[in-house]
Amino acid sequence: MGVLVVGTVTLDTVETPSKRVEDVLGGSGVYAAVAASFFGNTTVQLVGVVGADFPHAYTNFLQTRGIDLQGLERVEDGKSFRWGGRYAEDFNVRDTLFTELNVIENFQPVLPEAYKNASYLFLANNSPVLQLSIIEQATNPKLIVCDTMDFWINEEREALEALLARVDVLILNDSEARLLTGDANLVRAAETILRYGPTRVIVKKGEHGAISITESSYFNAPAYPLTQVTDPTGAGDSFAGGMMGYLASVGDISEAAIRSAMVYGAVVASFNIEDFSVERQKRVAFSEISSRYCELQEAARF
Amino acid sequence: MGVLVVGTVTLDTVETPSKRVEDVLGGSGVYAAVAASFFGNTTVQLVGVVGADFPHAYTNFLQTRGIDLQGLERVEDGKSFRWGGRYAEDFNVRDTLFTELNVIENFQPVLPEAYKNASYLFLANNSPVLQLSIIEQATNPKLIVCDTMDFWINEEREALEALLARVDVLILNDSEARLLTGDANLVRAAETILRYGPTRVIVKKGEHGAISITESSYFNAPAYPLTQVTDPTGAGDSFAGGMMGYLASVGDISEAAIRSAMVYGAVVASFNIEDFSVERQKRVAFSEISSRYCELQEAARF
Repeated sequence: MGVLVVGTVTLDTVETPSKRVEDVLGGSGVYAAVAASFFGNTTVQLVGVVGADFPHAYTNFLQTRGIDLQGLERVEDGKSFRWGGRYAEDFNVRDTLFTELNVIENFQPVLPEAYKNASYLFLANNSPVLQLSIIEQATNPKLIVCDTMDFWINEEREALEALLARVDVLILNDSEARLLTGDANLVRAAETILRYGPTRVIVKKGEHGAISITESSYFNAPAYPLTQVTDPTGAGDSFAGGMMGYLASVGDISEAAIRSAMVYGAVVASFNIEDFSVERQKRVAFSEISSRYCELQEAARF
Repeated sequence: MGVLVVGTVTLDTVETPSKRVEDVLGGSGVYAAVAASFFGNTTVQLVGVVGADFPHAYTNFLQTRGIDLQGLERVEDGKSFRWGGRYAEDFNVRDTLFTELNVIENFQPVLPEAYKNASYLFLANNSPVLQLSIIEQATNPKLIVCDTMDFWINEEREALEALLARVDVLILNDSEARLLTGDANLVRAAETILRYGPTRVIVKKGEHGAISITESSYFNAPAYPLTQVTDPTGAGDSFAGGMMGYLASVGDISEAAIRSAMVYGAVVASFNIEDFSVERQKRVAFSEISSRYCELQEAARF
């Protein structure tokens, strides 16, 4: 089965207390697609846009991961989306240094014919209007998962609510869940979000793992206990992408499958964090993913 | 088997956005002892001190829970320890309004003969010097667990390190683990604390559950997903007390037993939070504890 990822494809500049990297491969679409590509017999299709300055080495890398780039538009007279961020000592605070939208500003994604019947849709954080337009182009989705962020919650509330009525799963982080509902209690906040339409809400809590809530279930997914954090950029999208990749590979969206998928997502995210950009993912064998999955099973057993 | 709890027995004034209560039964020793008393065939012995103003209704209640009060000293010319605190809207911030040490200031606990051979010692947050003096009076401890707080970490570092060399398990919250080690990464912080002596470090993370680390194991205990928070005071001590009560009732300190014990502790803490003082605990049947334990098993399964 196939995963369709719609997200950003960017050139990132990241500063941490130990190092600075410039114009490295990044973006929500990239992190999610690379994460999904770890799971056998899953085709991953990526929708996004880059400028003429986007290095061929980066698109080549994505292709070596088996990621279908038919939906990656290249604007020959445009510049790629650039983002810069700086992490403080303990990685809990991130300052955005700059955001240059460039080609993304007027991007109106049109799904290639071959993408329209994708089963698993992951709509990474984006304008809810754009996210909705993708849903309207998809002919046969089995599972629609979307992410969002504070900007859309504050600025595009109405469109976001229209989107939520159309998705199966909303993934967001704890502060976003609180912002969206005005409720500091995360469990109650997630329950409130269910009323907007999704049948499942997944709240990401960083080092504290993630929780999943439906009308009839509650799941507490552990995070992998990392002792070495190099760059958390993209961890949330890796989580979501890994989850989607696993679900597509097993062709199952049962509660049990989604729980396993969330833990696989947490594992892929843990590798993401161990190096800048997608450097660590380049060196990860699936056996290492399986091994951390087993460690988390052991860590959650009682 | 018996649990020996050494902690404070206080008259608390607590303000929340919805209500204010005055001079209610509280203190680390009370919360821990009440939590431990839920577990069958466990005798709970309490060491602490109160003044002449301490209501007999409170000591009577503790006795109806089967808690042995031989070690609860009553200073006839003294006043009880009083503490006042106020919670903000989301319960994540607590301001201490006042702390009147009174009888606790010069308390030098002497274990009654019948307490000296207790197997399970829980030394609630207190001066490390006092905590050490209890260890020195105990003749046959099977498991020594202690808690601490920022004040002792900052002011009594040397005594605290001497204490840590003598305990089996240190329980502390996430900010305390960071303060004690200067390390923002909780997993690494817990690993560092192991080097001070404890064979196990348990880090409490409130709504995010707790983690337990030894040299060879990592456990991620879920928190019970509460939607109704009334008063979090004493939740940490309830967690520790519930854990100790379960361990004593099964007479087992294996990794498996400690994992179950932590989850039982989380469950007892969840009831604690649903009302002021120990009001909710008064109405909890053991079947309700078992039921939430099973819910958490289901919530952690994948």
